[in-house]
Amino acid sequence: MTHPTSTKALSLRDGGFASAPTPQTPESLAAHLDCTDVTLPAPAEGQVVIEVILAPVNPSDLFFIQGGYGQPRVQGQAAGFEGVGRVISGNGKAAEALIGQRVSFLGTGSGTWAQYAISDAALCIPLHDAVTDADAAALIVNPLTAVALVERVKEAGSTSFIVNAAGSQLGRLILGLARDEGLAAIAVIRRAGVEDELRDLGAAEVIITSADNAASQTRAALKAHKPRVLLDAVGDQTTADLFFAMPSGARWINYGKMSDAAPRLTQMGQFIFMDKHIEGFWLSRWLPSAPPERRASVIKQVQERFASGKWSTRVAAEVPLDQALDKVLPLLTQGAGKVLIKP
Amino acid sequence: MTHPTSTKALSLRDGGFASAPTPQTPESLAAHLDCTDVTLPAPAEGQVVIEVILAPVNPSDLFFIQGGYGQPRVQGQAAGFEGVGRVISGNGKAAEALIGQRVSFLGTGSGTWAQYAISDAALCIPLHDAVTDADAAALIVNPLTAVALVERVKEAGSTSFIVNAAGSQLGRLILGLARDEGLAAIAVIRRAGVEDELRDLGAAEVIITSADNAASQTRAALKAHKPRVLLDAVGDQTTADLFFAMPSGARWINYGKMSDAAPRLTQMGQFIFMDKHIEGFWLSRWLPSAPPERRASVIKQVQERFASGKWSTRVAAEVPLDQALDKVLPLLTQGAGKVLIKP
Repeated sequence: MTHPTSTKALSLRDGGFASAPTPQTPESLAAHLDCTDVTLPAPAEGQVVIEVILAPVNPSDLFFIQGGYGQPRVQGQAAGFEGVGRVISGNGKAAEALIGQRVSFLGTGSGTWAQYAISDAALCIPLHDAVTDADAAALIVNPLTAVALVERVKEAGSTSFIVNAAGSQLGRLILGLARDEGLAAIAVIRRAGVEDELRDLGAAEVIITSADNAASQTRAALKAHKPRVLLDAVGDQTTADLFFAMPSGARWINYGKMSDAAPRLTQMGQFIFMDKHIEGFWLSRWLPSAPPERRASVIKQVQERFASGKWSTRVAAEVPLDQALDKVLPLLTQGAGKVLIKP
Repeated sequence: MTHPTSTKALSLRDGGFASAPTPQTPESLAAHLDCTDVTLPAPAEGQVVIEVILAPVNPSDLFFIQGGYGQPRVQGQAAGFEGVGRVISGNGKAAEALIGQRVSFLGTGSGTWAQYAISDAALCIPLHDAVTDADAAALIVNPLTAVALVERVKEAGSTSFIVNAAGSQLGRLILGLARDEGLAAIAVIRRAGVEDELRDLGAAEVIITSADNAASQTRAALKAHKPRVLLDAVGDQTTADLFFAMPSGARWINYGKMSDAAPRLTQMGQFIFMDKHIEGFWLSRWLPSAPPERRASVIKQVQERFASGKWSTRVAAEVPLDQALDKVLPLLTQGAGKVLIKP
């Protein structure tokens, strides 16, 4: 079987990690990526080659290309964590069995912001026809994170929780899931505008942190729901203050860093007397640690939610690969939804 | 059976909690305590009356009298969490069985900084003759905390740990216990002076944070031992910086607040990518949650360590009850060991 040996891609200009903490959004993509032809490695046993249909730009991708993510960059390798595509070749029986199928996948050793990408066959999710390409492109990172985070809320024995950056794609997935699981979600957003939308999606309460009545809204929501989990993608002082206002036993679970602030722990005594915790969540740690049957059931659940329309991906735009370096960031800052790269 | 109905005591001037975070050391004791006669409640079923021999002044007592501890004050009640004394009367069979015995105890509904105190018989520890009054006075709070914290290190699967304020009575207990448990303790102190003493007690390394070579010492100790637990009684920025310098999986366990600082979380990403945690430890939560047989074995272990001389309490001074309001704080700030109140 022959495989393509090169691919047009957005490839990493630098290797390793950045020497200092990085912002969520880089000043430009061109400072970190080249749009060029790169070598496509031959698929190892158990791997497939995929012709990419669409690949999303996630917050984790932006940290990664800057060297601020938990995995080191490999210079010259295509960027992009996930995508949807069609399997065109494979190495080994399990891999060849996928040829011709449309799959959601995570890139392995060669990223998804490319015409062709490599993936472990075991990390490919064959798709129902009812799942659109746009939904399939972002079927893994955000949806599995949403499921795993809501699972943490349930494990903590809390019937309610706070989620900030609630207007993000991930925030919206969490809200819908929470309602179906019978959990009261307190959605925190910075600016007014989407509060009705978030209530329709499943939020029990919406707090707008820039509103004049934010403090009284927060007190009322905490009193009514007594949330003991804070799902945090921001990591700023407002988040810390919210954590210290929560009841005994509260857990601050950080899974993203939209703010560059270094929040202050103003109430250290709460760790002692109120049994509070701070911890993190990383999908790349959760995935290998979750039992395979649990992962399979989660993936099934995720795909069904998209197929049935319970979840959907808001798409701001599809951008051709060779225009991405200029067009992606301006589209992202409009906050109108996911930006998808189309090779 | 008759019981004393009043007692000379250092009694709380205010009830409830302070409205703002409190410093470790108050400006004066007289602002928070009166030396006066107060009513001694009649012992309930299962309680004993104890004639107090000695009672220590612990950091937790100082937070408590200011209203900065996790339990509310009761105005007019005697202060003092623990002590040693002789049981003079009791209510019920189990309580009466202790009459005449010398016991370490926790005050219940009436504190230990008094001539007479009340305790649950179940919280009294009958003493071997080999345990001195000074050791027996502080047999519960610090020693059980030391055992429980070292247990947490072992539960975390770490063969080494960092302990700050290592020159404190509690720090010293932890060092001796750690050595006997085969754990490498990295002792952190602010000023030079006791480093050899701490090494003799069991410290594998001593870091002096005010020394010129503190940074290189810290790097070397972290590299050599890879500690994944930080036992923290300080809660300042130096502590936070140490935490962020520790390897993946590190847990910051705060059990005291010697500093008034509000440390900054400068590396939020470490919660996500390095699986770091911040949590607290409180003996008052640990005690009821530990199974009774576990508590009994810990208490036996603690008493044996004091009886055999493996542990001992450094005593700065014994202060008569009616001189305590003036004399205790100046003695404490000298840092020469425990100050004991003698009714």
